[in-house]
Amino acid sequence: MFRTHNCGELTLKNLNEKVTLSGWVSVLRDKGFMIWIDVRDRYGITQLIIDEERSDKSLFETAKKLGREFVIQATGTVIERASKNPNIPTGEVEILIEKLEILNESKLPPFTIDDNTDGGEELRMQYRYLDLRRNPVKNKLIFRHKIAQEVRKYLSDKDFIEVETPVLIKSTPEGARDFVVPSRMNPGEFYALPQSPQTFKQLMMVGGLDKYFQIVKCFRDEDLRADRQPEFTQIDCEMAFVEQEDILEIFEGLTKHLLKSVHNVEIEKFPRMTYDEAMRKYGNDKPDIRFGMEFHELNELAKGKGFDIFDKEELVVGISAPTLNSYTRKDIDRLLEWMQRPQIGARGFVWVRVNEDGTFKSSADKFYSEQDLSAFAEKMNAKKGDLMILMAGKANDTRKQLSALRMELAERLGLRNPNEFAPLWVVDFPLLEFDEESNRWHAMHHPFTSPKPEDMDKLSIDPGEIRANAYDLVLNGNEIGGGSIRIYDRELQAQMFSLLGFTPEQAQEQFGFLMNAFQYGAPPHGGIAFGFDRLVSILDGSETIRDYIAFPKNNSGRDVMIDAPAAIDQMQLDELAINVVKK
Amino acid sequence: MFRTHNCGELTLKNLNEKVTLSGWVSVLRDKGFMIWIDVRDRYGITQLIIDEERSDKSLFETAKKLGREFVIQATGTVIERASKNPNIPTGEVEILIEKLEILNESKLPPFTIDDNTDGGEELRMQYRYLDLRRNPVKNKLIFRHKIAQEVRKYLSDKDFIEVETPVLIKSTPEGARDFVVPSRMNPGEFYALPQSPQTFKQLMMVGGLDKYFQIVKCFRDEDLRADRQPEFTQIDCEMAFVEQEDILEIFEGLTKHLLKSVHNVEIEKFPRMTYDEAMRKYGNDKPDIRFGMEFHELNELAKGKGFDIFDKEELVVGISAPTLNSYTRKDIDRLLEWMQRPQIGARGFVWVRVNEDGTFKSSADKFYSEQDLSAFAEKMNAKKGDLMILMAGKANDTRKQLSALRMELAERLGLRNPNEFAPLWVVDFPLLEFDEESNRWHAMHHPFTSPKPEDMDKLSIDPGEIRANAYDLVLNGNEIGGGSIRIYDRELQAQMFSLLGFTPEQAQEQFGFLMNAFQYGAPPHGGIAFGFDRLVSILDGSETIRDYIAFPKNNSGRDVMIDAPAAIDQMQLDELAINVVKK
Repeated sequence: MFRTHNCGELTLKNLNEKVTLSGWVSVLRDKGFMIWIDVRDRYGITQLIIDEERSDKSLFETAKKLGREFVIQATGTVIERASKNPNIPTGEVEILIEKLEILNESKLPPFTIDDNTDGGEELRMQYRYLDLRRNPVKNKLIFRHKIAQEVRKYLSDKDFIEVETPVLIKSTPEGARDFVVPSRMNPGEFYALPQSPQTFKQLMMVGGLDKYFQIVKCFRDEDLRADRQPEFTQIDCEMAFVEQEDILEIFEGLTKHLLKSVHNVEIEKFPRMTYDEAMRKYGNDKPDIRFGMEFHELNELAKGKGFDIFDKEELVVGISAPTLNSYTRKDIDRLLEWMQRPQIGARGFVWVRVNEDGTFKSSADKFYSEQDLSAFAEKMNAKKGDLMILMAGKANDTRKQLSALRMELAERLGLRNPNEFAPLWVVDFPLLEFDEESNRWHAMHHPFTSPKPEDMDKLSIDPGEIRANAYDLVLNGNEIGGGSIRIYDRELQAQMFSLLGFTPEQAQEQFGFLMNAFQYGAPPHGGIAFGFDRLVSILDGSETIRDYIAFPKNNSGRDVMIDAPAAIDQMQLDELAINVVKK
Repeated sequence: MFRTHNCGELTLKNLNEKVTLSGWVSVLRDKGFMIWIDVRDRYGITQLIIDEERSDKSLFETAKKLGREFVIQATGTVIERASKNPNIPTGEVEILIEKLEILNESKLPPFTIDDNTDGGEELRMQYRYLDLRRNPVKNKLIFRHKIAQEVRKYLSDKDFIEVETPVLIKSTPEGARDFVVPSRMNPGEFYALPQSPQTFKQLMMVGGLDKYFQIVKCFRDEDLRADRQPEFTQIDCEMAFVEQEDILEIFEGLTKHLLKSVHNVEIEKFPRMTYDEAMRKYGNDKPDIRFGMEFHELNELAKGKGFDIFDKEELVVGISAPTLNSYTRKDIDRLLEWMQRPQIGARGFVWVRVNEDGTFKSSADKFYSEQDLSAFAEKMNAKKGDLMILMAGKANDTRKQLSALRMELAERLGLRNPNEFAPLWVVDFPLLEFDEESNRWHAMHHPFTSPKPEDMDKLSIDPGEIRANAYDLVLNGNEIGGGSIRIYDRELQAQMFSLLGFTPEQAQEQFGFLMNAFQYGAPPHGGIAFGFDRLVSILDGSETIRDYIAFPKNNSGRDVMIDAPAAIDQMQLDELAINVVKK
């Protein structure tokens, strides 16, 4: 037996007990006549002691061979420490050891195994197995485990059953992003890896399983933007005989349960906002509502005063940033440069300082009187000390740019408090969006989303105006979940595919299995999926998904440590090539 | 809101309540003046009633349109039934309905949605979404969910943390069975899908996570023997600072917990048997010990009596089958034919009837006296009424054949009781087996398995005799789990790869990431993996894995319903072909 206790549990209660511990050498202090060894495992750190008076000489010989991260096993007696360490649970005791064995040696690690290590991100990722020994990393994985447990508990208690869906599936039209997997059993044919178990969960609803969930890996073969992984985990859920309200209620409950169990935070009722309102007030369909700085439209007040830029544009809109009238001209110029970077692409903005004495100073003083600016301030609810920023342009673009500015200023002002949790339901998404490039309609959510019944008559005449029974759950400005009520009528589903540019034959070939199923008593159903990686990191007050994955992939999709994908051997390549080419 | 209650919960307690139910039309009985509708959902069946006296005429019109599996919503009042059905929880009430809506129609289903349906296996699989509505299928999925929950609960309570490992990984030498996944991000390079997360869990032990588990999908691209799936689920576990005994204890505990929670069965202590003993006593490394019929070796008694076939062979071995002296010559001939099929390949056997009067009748009477046969019977512990069957040949082959016979006779005798649970640990597996075809040693478990310390000296001189710290958990003749104590020393691991025919360069290229990690303080560790699909089916008293998978694949690896893998579109194929060929 390697240990009687772990390194985090011995206290004064264990005084005089004979114990055996195993772990890693964390710290060594050698005073010649006395040696202290801090031995560490997942559960904590315990101090071992050897001294000339009480210990055998051979222990000194072994101890002198030790180095950082050596793996040791030590047996001894729990004694009270002379100088106690109140910062750790084991800090009142130490082990006077009588047996010490080196279980494995260690080369000098490339960085220290401390909460604040000297290893940079790249080095830590290369030696992820050493990084995992550090408390902050280990704790993130334990946190993730805990959230998964709580999700399963909550949903199981509500009669959901977790069902595994296939990973090797048929390729679907969003195929451009599918990973494909050649099949040796069926040469020339390919599986795809699922981007989500969407169609399977709908089939389960047709199959009467009523309430399904799964914490499941999904896959997307696309450019990996910062902190995005080609494989990601989803909490996937579906329910039969529900309307939107039923789903919002259950999953608002889940989110409350998590906030309560993890942070002891209680939130009464999550606010709701339509997509339209979110875009108008925040220029964003996942607004961070931990802080204000809402948009205010100024067309009526700002147009017709001779300021050409504002006069000719579709929309004049602004925000008022608290305390930022302290920004110098230089600060403002820098902010403008930041806005003009290609990622954001703003042309310019007008600023208005609200001075402490109630007067205004603006970059457009030539066109707007003190009275005009005062009217702006009133409309925008600006306070003394604020800096108002006004932009003009095409409505959509301008809102997007102003949204970026709003988030940036909030960051600078420290308004994005990671310990505050502000959930929000965004509802009534448009069903379709028109893609200029391909010159056709795309499903904003996916092709299985149901139009709102009251908008159904626009299906053939004004598709862009149809709202969907679709909803997103937003937490602190991050979309953590999204879902919809689904189509369950074969004809409506066929109509939808047609609207999206499928011929009836294409629709049948790709989704025949689902549309056929709809003919045999498909119940009304709907669901939601949470991005588990993101949910976990946001709940932990972080936005860095990668930290919560034991073996993340880097930006080119390679395992940070193992360097996959790797070339496979030539024989396999040849076989693949033959199969692919002969098809 | 689609329902106030589900179809399985209304009883006399709800008398006179106004309720709304939704579900599928299960049974319709139309007596003209009265119509009964059984409405079904996942939770049960409730009877609805319409009658001329109390119900609106329009309800009759709607009800007359209904057919089997139509989806309906009905509102009405809970009343007491005249003729009660004691077989279902809702059998004392019915709903006198006042509103009836057809939510969706259904074509006539190709088989009835009953516990015993008229649909054959193929039809049921093709319409799996209808099959899922049947109680036996639905209950199997719920059973699986429950087992997964109990596994997670047990392991989490014991400080294991569930960590997700990558699905897109680097290809390893067992690569012949790996599915490969071309990467668009890294043209010409491939991921592999994991056959197990073996190396990752070992890295986590190096990383100090101490106790890891995961219920995880694994993949194997190989011929699908009956009831085998290309994607399967594993309970994967690893622990640091453990010896074999620690692991057996924890996972014996897990298995006990499952048997207790699912069947209320308590088993004191699981028996253990060495691989060697299992092979000699049962000819099988996963013996079913629910019944006896153990092997008995007869070399000493049966040789030297002039029976050439027995005299010249390596091993004479037999079993005694209870009550089978009733077998006629014809029965025995048929049994022999069964044994001589190519799948088993026996050349022949000698039979000995133990008559009720204590005399014997044998197919080798010419060579063996009554006294000889009596000695056989004594050795084999044969009782009156038994049929002894003796075989001779090369030890390994003969044991295998006799094992097949033992299982077949047990089946015929009804000795494999699905409600009995007989777990068994098989330990001390050989580390290596020699493969004649490739003329080299193969790891019996995998290359990371540790030799037993006391056999270490045979490493260079007699590799076939080295026993491993490896163990299997067998339940009712099925291997449900297997694992080992791992190598954690870089040099020993290198030696093992060399023994398996790797050059040092190959070993480094394939497993450098693991061997490098061993240099930084790898702790002693070991683990186990359970075949979750098999575990679930065996615990449910079935050996048909496929029934416990929501969307199983058929023998050619296609989803039974969706018919994946499917050809992907030509553009993708071309792109793939280019990437593969240009490599």
